[in-house]
Amino acid sequence: EQVEKWIATHPDTITLTAPVAIVPGGEAIKKGWSMISDITQKMLAGGLCRHSYAMMIGGGAVLDAVGFAAAIFHRGIRQIRVPTTLLSMDDAGVGVKNGINYNGTKNLFGCFYPPEAVIIDYQFLRTLEKRDIFAGVAEALKVALIKDKTLYGFIKDNAEAIKNIDWTVLEHLATESSRLHLAHISSGDPFEKGSSRPLDFGHWSAHKLEAMTNNEVRHGEAVAIGMGVDIYCAALMDLIPMTMAKDILTTMQSCGLNLWHDALGRVDRNGKLEILDGLKEFQEHLGGRLTLAMPTGVGAFKDIHTLPEPIIEKALKLLQGTEHDPRVAHAI
Amino acid sequence: EQVEKWIATHPDTITLTAPVAIVPGGEAIKKGWSMISDITQKMLAGGLCRHSYAMMIGGGAVLDAVGFAAAIFHRGIRQIRVPTTLLSMDDAGVGVKNGINYNGTKNLFGCFYPPEAVIIDYQFLRTLEKRDIFAGVAEALKVALIKDKTLYGFIKDNAEAIKNIDWTVLEHLATESSRLHLAHISSGDPFEKGSSRPLDFGHWSAHKLEAMTNNEVRHGEAVAIGMGVDIYCAALMDLIPMTMAKDILTTMQSCGLNLWHDALGRVDRNGKLEILDGLKEFQEHLGGRLTLAMPTGVGAFKDIHTLPEPIIEKALKLLQGTEHDPRVAHAI
Repeated sequence: EQVEKWIATHPDTITLTAPVAIVPGGEAIKKGWSMISDITQKMLAGGLCRHSYAMMIGGGAVLDAVGFAAAIFHRGIRQIRVPTTLLSMDDAGVGVKNGINYNGTKNLFGCFYPPEAVIIDYQFLRTLEKRDIFAGVAEALKVALIKDKTLYGFIKDNAEAIKNIDWTVLEHLATESSRLHLAHISSGDPFEKGSSRPLDFGHWSAHKLEAMTNNEVRHGEAVAIGMGVDIYCAALMDLIPMTMAKDILTTMQSCGLNLWHDALGRVDRNGKLEILDGLKEFQEHLGGRLTLAMPTGVGAFKDIHTLPEPIIEKALKLLQGTEHDPRVAHAI
Repeated sequence: EQVEKWIATHPDTITLTAPVAIVPGGEAIKKGWSMISDITQKMLAGGLCRHSYAMMIGGGAVLDAVGFAAAIFHRGIRQIRVPTTLLSMDDAGVGVKNGINYNGTKNLFGCFYPPEAVIIDYQFLRTLEKRDIFAGVAEALKVALIKDKTLYGFIKDNAEAIKNIDWTVLEHLATESSRLHLAHISSGDPFEKGSSRPLDFGHWSAHKLEAMTNNEVRHGEAVAIGMGVDIYCAALMDLIPMTMAKDILTTMQSCGLNLWHDALGRVDRNGKLEILDGLKEFQEHLGGRLTLAMPTGVGAFKDIHTLPEPIIEKALKLLQGTEHDPRVAHAI
């Protein structure tokens, strides 16, 4: 209603071609072709043409699905993306990727399609549940850890403020994180033809954890835990000192991030940790040989091509211990 | 079988990830999502990953549909396109556009996706029906007329050879036409964000004629007729001299192209020529204001934004007359 009202009073700026459509939020919108058909039929019925703009307002899943619909409608119409969650302000909003899930395969269909504009309106942050704020913090921390020592320093210095939902600090996180994502997309390999995917740091176990919990654990929450796993793995592989690993995990916890979920300890009928399957699934999704971005310091990473299971098992034990007694970590 | 056998004997060059799949040819493959789902499920079952190549062998419709499937599978895998018709060698093979039809709307879904490689193998020309050869000649003539005086001169000089299916001449047509298409795509507006679409010369009535005849008239055949309509329109609008219009139409006929179909004379219940609706439908498909490329000479064009119905009606009468007595045209 507010959008329609605003547009009605600004006829020189914008014309509403089709009525504002309400779509489901979260992963539901990304399930199969049905929402794509639904959205595009509305676009068609509304008379959108190749010169129209599709403006989409929502979290990452909404931007993924509606962005895909707009990207293939008449071979793609111009997009204005308005991310409403901290997580999507961090990355999906400025990103060029879209997609839907199909037959249980995440993002089986999708494409790369740059938006004409991205509008980050901090007012939306006030609409979020607390856990979605922290999911966004995890994403910002990820890109800082891999790409930007300065942003990581800011996060460390402001961990308490983040935990207490200081809006000014969170807005700075969103801005800097989106800038780092934009810089990453604008350089190197925007269409991901190669194997290096630094922004997927921590994602092999995160994706698996999301699937294992039927998305009860949200993406950003899973990424925080996944980073915890890989930070310990990095230390166990001598890529970073163990003291640095513990210092990073302490910072994460100080920001209010949770680093453990009991599903990580779940075993299959052969006694094998289910989470370990995530590594193979991650490789299959990316194709080619296994390539994982691992921290080699704060704001630095390298790609590795093997991650032995005993290392992961040991990292999980350490992570569980850290979480069970936060004072251990804090004491470092 | 030949493809599988060749691959089996060249293991150092290429590995077949999934079995060769046979797909329907022609517009049938472009109908709705079903073939896209079918093709992508085969890709998934075959274990194709983001580093795999999809090689597609077929005419324009097959390249459109399989190209679209490959372009959205895992956000796009590399494509090698092997056009098998003269028409697709001329344009769709080297093109970046793909798409499927939906709910009666041509190319409602699709995207722009550049192939890694296009293989034009002239051997495929020998497999074509005669009418498909001439459909390809029409496409080459179109791009020559709009873009390249030299190629048009070659066609005019070799009209008799073209009519008699001289392979060397036809191969030259395919090569030069594909080069002109590639040059067009590589410069200017590859993603068609603007309104100028010179390669759609003659297409407003061609698309309508295809629809009016349930695709009994093939695309290239319809383009030949559509160009005939627009060439007379251009002369009636003083964009080119009438003598030039007649000379071009004579060349087209000498090449063996048919310039008339009785559906062009079909009227609706109000006595209005049905073909006239094609203009509005063309505008709606492209969006924005009407923009038609019209010849202003051989190898030159300009965009016009209005095409009065009386001009079209007169052009149709002239075209029908030309066709009914080819000697009139030949005598010019």
